Amino acid sequence: VDPTLLREARERIAPYLSPTPLVDAHALSRRTGVRARLKLESLQPTGSFKVRPAFNGLLSRLPEAQARGVLCSSSGNFAQAVAFAARELGVSATIVMSSATSKFKVERTRALGAEVVSCGPRFEDRWETTRRLQEETGRLLLHPFDSPETVAGDATIGLELLDQLPGGVTVAVPVSGGGMLAGVACALRAARPGCRIIGVQPRANASMARSLAAGERVNVGAFTTVADALVAAMPGELTFSLARKLVDDLVLVDEEEILAAVRFLAEEQKLVAEPGGAVAVAALLAGRLPGREAVCVISGGNVRLGELFR
Amino acid sequence: VDPTLLREARERIAPYLSPTPLVDAHALSRRTGVRARLKLESLQPTGSFKVRPAFNGLLSRLPEAQARGVLCSSSGNFAQAVAFAARELGVSATIVMSSATSKFKVERTRALGAEVVSCGPRFEDRWETTRRLQEETGRLLLHPFDSPETVAGDATIGLELLDQLPGGVTVAVPVSGGGMLAGVACALRAARPGCRIIGVQPRANASMARSLAAGERVNVGAFTTVADALVAAMPGELTFSLARKLVDDLVLVDEEEILAAVRFLAEEQKLVAEPGGAVAVAALLAGRLPGREAVCVISGGNVRLGELFR
Repeated sequence: VDPTLLREARERIAPYLSPTPLVDAHALSRRTGVRARLKLESLQPTGSFKVRPAFNGLLSRLPEAQARGVLCSSSGNFAQAVAFAARELGVSATIVMSSATSKFKVERTRALGAEVVSCGPRFEDRWETTRRLQEETGRLLLHPFDSPETVAGDATIGLELLDQLPGGVTVAVPVSGGGMLAGVACALRAARPGCRIIGVQPRANASMARSLAAGERVNVGAFTTVADALVAAMPGELTFSLARKLVDDLVLVDEEEILAAVRFLAEEQKLVAEPGGAVAVAALLAGRLPGREAVCVISGGNVRLGELFR
Repeated sequence: VDPTLLREARERIAPYLSPTPLVDAHALSRRTGVRARLKLESLQPTGSFKVRPAFNGLLSRLPEAQARGVLCSSSGNFAQAVAFAARELGVSATIVMSSATSKFKVERTRALGAEVVSCGPRFEDRWETTRRLQEETGRLLLHPFDSPETVAGDATIGLELLDQLPGGVTVAVPVSGGGMLAGVACALRAARPGCRIIGVQPRANASMARSLAAGERVNVGAFTTVADALVAAMPGELTFSLARKLVDDLVLVDEEEILAAVRFLAEEQKLVAEPGGAVAVAALLAGRLPGREAVCVISGGNVRLGELFR
């Protein structure tokens, strides 16, 4: 992805989104012996980093979006983000969400004024329904991870880290389709060669890890994970090729480790993270991140903790 | 309080504590129509602003503290903060905590290596036990709110706001004994005359509000509130006299309003705040803060949400 696209993305979204804070995580540092910092994407409007690619995608083709409306498919966080950005920009939004998506996320997407179209629970069902709707309606399609505009929007996290980080550290990010991983790697790889860039996935969905190991994109098929934001069963073409070139390693975490990280963040760091948003912290707590200093991206906070810890 | 004390406090604590972020609170702004920002003291080590006065108090008289040990009384957050700062600075800590204090806070204080001495549940029991122990042991006594060092430590919140805030806004802070209110008012009143400085208390404990209305310090006697950090039944002498001179208004919030604010912060802003830490947000949500722009200080996050919302 052309570095110009990244800079343009940052300028485009700046009037709508403030940089998110990078905070020292004292309790996490004490517990792990690694100097830990957290990048709080959970503080974004709609509670996840997905507003970055949503605004970048819509603003890249705003007249078209306003004339034709926008369409996307999402496990829940991109849905809310597109609904929010569309409302802010006067665009009509239709969003395809799986019947397996958390009710919390569906309700919130509807509350933001988007039309939600339900589809079957498989990863493929979302794409089939979305393709069909795109043909029928002619709406502008935004991809949740596998387009240059989305990767560039995600990359603005990395551009902010360049301003916020003193030197070379380990940067760990949650991985589903790989948009954030690819974007952060694009922003940091050349500019900060001392940084190690690590993707983290639930072991239940090791789609990017297995693809990188195989040297080609692997579809892992059906699985379940508490990390309902990390359900892409296969990385994107663009995100896979960028990850191959730019990423240092992929790390896997177990379901209990993810839940322990969510609990640690709430009790010790006073932050609400959803399971998918906490996997990088889970990797740190499990001792699976290299180096003496780490940044973990908290990618989202869309969960009701009471429902998780009944 | 001499402005020099405030600047000295800031310099003293700087090697130990980073400034806390001031973040845009999108969901809160949308809900209230007021541009809302949150000052996240919940992200401090030990999860509350109290590490500021704890470090300032100990560092002001460090050789004495190291030779004699330190003693304080606390409803729970100052306890953890003094235990933490004492451990960092090689000081032995004894802390008087009421039998009414949340177990969560007692456990954490012990886990930080402090000796916890239990006393009766009344506000007065804490002072009697503390005075007796001070006579017996000769330890350095740190006051949780009513000393120049504590007010100056609390005031560093206001000094950071001077750097972080563009202009004159409403600044709302939780009030128990009035240390943070007095400190923030000292830092902002002269430097930023366009700011309105508002204290917020649970209606169940309107000690500062009633004292200001009466023109003298009032002890409100026994009460119960979910805000277990805001249990001082009477303001301090110093904090009362500073509040009289420097504070614009006191606002009261009901118990259900406090719980609604805790829930809103968790679900919509992805932040864990304890009830006492959320009262400024409760006032904003209840429409009780003046002005079009508000900063609410989230003073602490020491609570298990699962226990609060069973």
